[in-house]
Amino acid sequence: MTKLRILGVDPGSRYTGWGVLDQEGNRLIHIASGRIEAHKEGELPQRLLKIHQGILEVVNAYQPQETAIEKVFVSVNGQATLVLGQARGVALLALVEGGLRVAEYAPNEVKSAVSGQGKAPKEQILAMVRVILNLQGQKISEDQSDALAVAICHANSRTFRNRALQAGN
Amino acid sequence: MTKLRILGVDPGSRYTGWGVLDQEGNRLIHIASGRIEAHKEGELPQRLLKIHQGILEVVNAYQPQETAIEKVFVSVNGQATLVLGQARGVALLALVEGGLRVAEYAPNEVKSAVSGQGKAPKEQILAMVRVILNLQGQKISEDQSDALAVAICHANSRTFRNRALQAGN
Repeated sequence: MTKLRILGVDPGSRYTGWGVLDQEGNRLIHIASGRIEAHKEGELPQRLLKIHQGILEVVNAYQPQETAIEKVFVSVNGQATLVLGQARGVALLALVEGGLRVAEYAPNEVKSAVSGQGKAPKEQILAMVRVILNLQGQKISEDQSDALAVAICHANSRTFRNRALQAGN
Repeated sequence: MTKLRILGVDPGSRYTGWGVLDQEGNRLIHIASGRIEAHKEGELPQRLLKIHQGILEVVNAYQPQETAIEKVFVSVNGQATLVLGQARGVALLALVEGGLRVAEYAPNEVKSAVSGQGKAPKEQILAMVRVILNLQGQKISEDQSDALAVAICHANSRTFRNRALQAGN
């Protein structure tokens, strides 16, 4: 059975979540996940350095074959959007520098893939990520959970694509 | 007389302007300037790669000692702010990866440093950059001009700081 390793990333200027899972047929196996704590680095340029470096380290350590990231919900706060954009830019850069393609999913697609509904609250996502990846009882941060959710969404989306292709043949 | 080499950067997801000048006492000498044309690269991740690579090449080629960038005016268009943020993030990253500190100036500070007034139109900035750096008759793009303007602003700001320190002693 072919195995596919997927990295999901949830960028932020304070915390950047990341999650690696293997897809083997219908099974999703949690490999590793965590968050990069850029807020400790002080000013924005140093934070960007930390986020970029952190994602490069994850890519090198776990060698994902495919990566996924959430499309950003543009907030009414322009300054917050700008800061998030800068964090997201260096995270994306680290992925494409490794030669990886990046799939993007809207927040409601990610929520729907994990919980069956596009407007599920954060706690429900966290609970479902735990169930799907068999992480019950383990402490995982919201950033970590969001990164794993987008990786799960990517895995499902691939599964659907493959099924659709088979059905079409 | 000590010489200081300054790099100014004006990031954008389509065009990223850059300008290098030397400050020798009261003199400002244009060394090189140009723009990175990321829009030809297609999608955002590839554009980010191009911007990051382009700034790294400029830093390696001209070895600036100080760098400056404009603070971003947050537009009402959240999507545009997000895209600009991502471009700015990878440009900043390229500067700090080289160990350089980055000074930031508000748009009105930059305009005022170059033209004497904080609300000068683009054409006036372009004209004044030409005069200050002795580039009359040369074709320079708006992005290039904006990058040189922020470098000039940084040079002036240093001069003022030094004068203020001398006056204070």
